[in-house]
Amino acid sequence: MSFPTSDLTAGLRVPAGAVDLVAIDTDAAPGFDGKRADGEAALAGMAVELADLQERLFAQGRSDGRRSLLLVLQGMDTSGKGGTLRSTVGLMDPQGVRITSFKAPTPEERSHDFLWRITKALPPVGLIGVFDRSHYEDVLIGRVRSLAEPAEIERRYDAINQWEAELAAEGTTVIKCMLHISAEEQKARLLARLDDPSKHWKYNPGDVDERELWPAYQEAYEVAIERTNTEVAPWHVIPADKKWYRNLAIGTLLLDALRDLDLSWPVADFDVEHEKQRLQHEKPL
Amino acid sequence: MSFPTSDLTAGLRVPAGAVDLVAIDTDAAPGFDGKRADGEAALAGMAVELADLQERLFAQGRSDGRRSLLLVLQGMDTSGKGGTLRSTVGLMDPQGVRITSFKAPTPEERSHDFLWRITKALPPVGLIGVFDRSHYEDVLIGRVRSLAEPAEIERRYDAINQWEAELAAEGTTVIKCMLHISAEEQKARLLARLDDPSKHWKYNPGDVDERELWPAYQEAYEVAIERTNTEVAPWHVIPADKKWYRNLAIGTLLLDALRDLDLSWPVADFDVEHEKQRLQHEKPL
Repeated sequence: MSFPTSDLTAGLRVPAGAVDLVAIDTDAAPGFDGKRADGEAALAGMAVELADLQERLFAQGRSDGRRSLLLVLQGMDTSGKGGTLRSTVGLMDPQGVRITSFKAPTPEERSHDFLWRITKALPPVGLIGVFDRSHYEDVLIGRVRSLAEPAEIERRYDAINQWEAELAAEGTTVIKCMLHISAEEQKARLLARLDDPSKHWKYNPGDVDERELWPAYQEAYEVAIERTNTEVAPWHVIPADKKWYRNLAIGTLLLDALRDLDLSWPVADFDVEHEKQRLQHEKPL
Repeated sequence: MSFPTSDLTAGLRVPAGAVDLVAIDTDAAPGFDGKRADGEAALAGMAVELADLQERLFAQGRSDGRRSLLLVLQGMDTSGKGGTLRSTVGLMDPQGVRITSFKAPTPEERSHDFLWRITKALPPVGLIGVFDRSHYEDVLIGRVRSLAEPAEIERRYDAINQWEAELAAEGTTVIKCMLHISAEEQKARLLARLDDPSKHWKYNPGDVDERELWPAYQEAYEVAIERTNTEVAPWHVIPADKKWYRNLAIGTLLLDALRDLDLSWPVADFDVEHEKQRLQHEKPL
């Protein structure tokens, strides 16, 4: 099933100005008319083009290209960051993708500016970097848990905008996504983890402590998105109660971003005919 | 199609003693009776179990596990290291896999012992590390191109054995594979790259210079495999003229190695019933 991908992409992009997450239905499927099976088929139908464009990006990186792509995934616990990596990012060649999962910063990381460890994890030219959590934690949990002074949190929004603008100027397409689930959906997913012994390892009692701060987190997201929703590094809010839609939406954003790069194959910097002759007339090995 | 995977794995393992690569048919499919379609189906049939075991390894790594896995891929140019990563390693969750492609060492890397950069790339506990080229380059091109004194090359075989034995003792399963193609197959693959503009970026005239040293490389492989073919880090020679067999063989080696780890799901270190109660009786958010 094919569909107008650019409509879906445009619909997920957060308009400039104040953000009201409550007004964005977590269970919707904006820009896509079909049901689950259609959505899964549509994502599967993108796999060949996604892989082809990713390989072109990689090939340009090996040549004189300067482009790379950075996908930032944020969201509350159980919102599906890991599932997105498996189901959507996993459609591309793992050689061309660099995934970084950010945990609570180590003492060494804390001794540096908050963007230090993030900068180290940036994708090299030609690669697609994926951040599972990111520098946004420093204005999300950082704000909710008062891990830094209010003035420092304020400074960070501007620092992020400047840092992302530099990234974009150097040739990195930045796609920022909040996977948006409802509190009820999170509760159902946490209970499902508790019901399945093969999922107990994913469960951390501390996650419920964070859950109790749900309204404060939603507000922190709203402020962070509003303050860092720039032309060169725009935010997308992805309704994520439906896993199939979340996967389709991220796949679509990746596909449209890669299409926009207008990726041609690098032209040979050697004499193709000469090389053919060399091989065809080589001495016996 | 199911088949006795342990027979295939055992058949690829190089016996102790001298190695004669010429005696190993690059176009064979040892341990597997079927044709290409059967082999592709057999690999696809492994995907669910591979992904499940990989997730268990990852889950143990997040708990008190100490196991990891390291797949070392070596082979002449065009032998299919990249294709293996895409088609076989790509069957697993990219979050649980860490791929490192080793190029010619940088000046900083050259200023350290040859194992320095390799050690830095080892997979953390719970992950599957994959090396596309490795420390073996230091006894392969290192030997063929005389990049180090003969005494240093000699020292390296022992250093590798000691280093790999330590790795294994720490809980890393080490699987070493040489993707074995014929010189004729390489020629055909290089010519195919030249014939296809979308593959020119993969072609490097220097590869043909290396090709002219084919017998010296084969001998260097034979010596390296013999000298470093240990019980804890055994070598496998994978007939790789047939891409489908190469993929199936690597998938089978991974599957058997993961099965041998006897991976159970970590047991919850919290009170499951208490957590359910907490969630079910929480205050309104």
